[in-house]
Amino acid sequence: MLSKNTVKFIKSLQQKKFRKQENSFFVEGTKNVTELLNSNFNVTYLLYTAKFAESHEAQVQASGAQKYEVTPKVLASTGSFLSNDSALAVAEMKQNEPFVIQGKELAIALDDVRDPGNLGTIIRIADWYGIKKLIFSEETADIYNPKVLNASMGSFTHISFFYTDLERYLKEISLPVYGAFLEGENIHRQKFKSEGILLMGNESNGISGKLASLVTQKLTIPSFGQAESLNVAVATAVICDNLRRNSTYKEI
Amino acid sequence: MLSKNTVKFIKSLQQKKFRKQENSFFVEGTKNVTELLNSNFNVTYLLYTAKFAESHEAQVQASGAQKYEVTPKVLASTGSFLSNDSALAVAEMKQNEPFVIQGKELAIALDDVRDPGNLGTIIRIADWYGIKKLIFSEETADIYNPKVLNASMGSFTHISFFYTDLERYLKEISLPVYGAFLEGENIHRQKFKSEGILLMGNESNGISGKLASLVTQKLTIPSFGQAESLNVAVATAVICDNLRRNSTYKEI
Repeated sequence: MLSKNTVKFIKSLQQKKFRKQENSFFVEGTKNVTELLNSNFNVTYLLYTAKFAESHEAQVQASGAQKYEVTPKVLASTGSFLSNDSALAVAEMKQNEPFVIQGKELAIALDDVRDPGNLGTIIRIADWYGIKKLIFSEETADIYNPKVLNASMGSFTHISFFYTDLERYLKEISLPVYGAFLEGENIHRQKFKSEGILLMGNESNGISGKLASLVTQKLTIPSFGQAESLNVAVATAVICDNLRRNSTYKEI
Repeated sequence: MLSKNTVKFIKSLQQKKFRKQENSFFVEGTKNVTELLNSNFNVTYLLYTAKFAESHEAQVQASGAQKYEVTPKVLASTGSFLSNDSALAVAEMKQNEPFVIQGKELAIALDDVRDPGNLGTIIRIADWYGIKKLIFSEETADIYNPKVLNASMGSFTHISFFYTDLERYLKEISLPVYGAFLEGENIHRQKFKSEGILLMGNESNGISGKLASLVTQKLTIPSFGQAESLNVAVATAVICDNLRRNSTYKEI
């Protein structure tokens, strides 16, 4: 039976302090839980309803987690959702290990993207465009925040990421660094290499001064109207679409 | 002096029922308030801090609204923001009047987009891409919801919109209707006319069955990775970017 202490433990993981202390996080909902169970994350607890068990029998059985069949009411009171009639899973956080960008690879670097919804949406976008590596500045929102994971719709399990001093990191690499600026080159008229790092900036301030000088190609999304800017996740998607269309572009 | 009744009246406008009853809505923050003051909305109340008055003296003076200089504390307790050191304004809602799409014009139709943040972000995207007309199904989120207006970053003042029975509306027009489907044509390889209606669907269900048959050109955003879908606002932006790049496309 699910103990009060376990519920308390899971609830505490809504706070970064406790996630760090326990080296654990949780996800909720069918999509995120099934993606987590399919991933190489070490799942430690799995709470699920009878309904979820019925439609995901094999996955539930295969999981080495501590398993509890519970009511939707228990799920809702344990996690962050107002209602949840499927599942909730706890897993261990991954080590913060830097990786190398190699070959013809695109990566995304985020300079202090602080809104959890934006970070999660950007992860989903990266996954859509086949960008598997993301590098976050220390001040970027915590990927293990439930709001980030929910907005990512399971895509957090398909990417690699680490948090680092972006200035030092970008100084050490020799790849093209793309960044969005108001006075950059029109992305509709550019050809792009298939490798490089797309650097996206903070919601209010854009790319910080110390990183702007490390951008090798300044880009602009052309505007046809009056809005002064686009949301950072939206801008990321439009730029990724333009970076990726490059190869198909020649075939038109 | 600002009366308790006025504060109560403004607070009540967070609820759709009272907005409808009072034919009024409010916006908060420098960007939204200044855009509202610059628009043809009839502003009835203007609450502002000394700081806002200093940096927007001419606008405050020119406004025919009932004006009150207040503290940030009063602004925060009256509106929906946790903190607000600039301004809040109340205005009259516009009549829900259908308009005609004419000439070489692009419009966006939303089929039950229910999340206020998504609707506001889509309005900002439409404004960025110079799309001035939006048509909403009856079940689409209320544009006068503070969350919609905040996410629109003032762009709601640059567009025309009305709520209607989309099925009837789309049946009556003779323009191309673009819609995003998983099995549509790759947007990277299409040429588009400069007129038409981009139809975007509900967050969970996409474009409803009764409207799908009215789409004349089914489009797909090509995927390069594993994510199953994109958020509706993100998809709207990527499609608008592809619709608009058409003209510049020839010049590359």
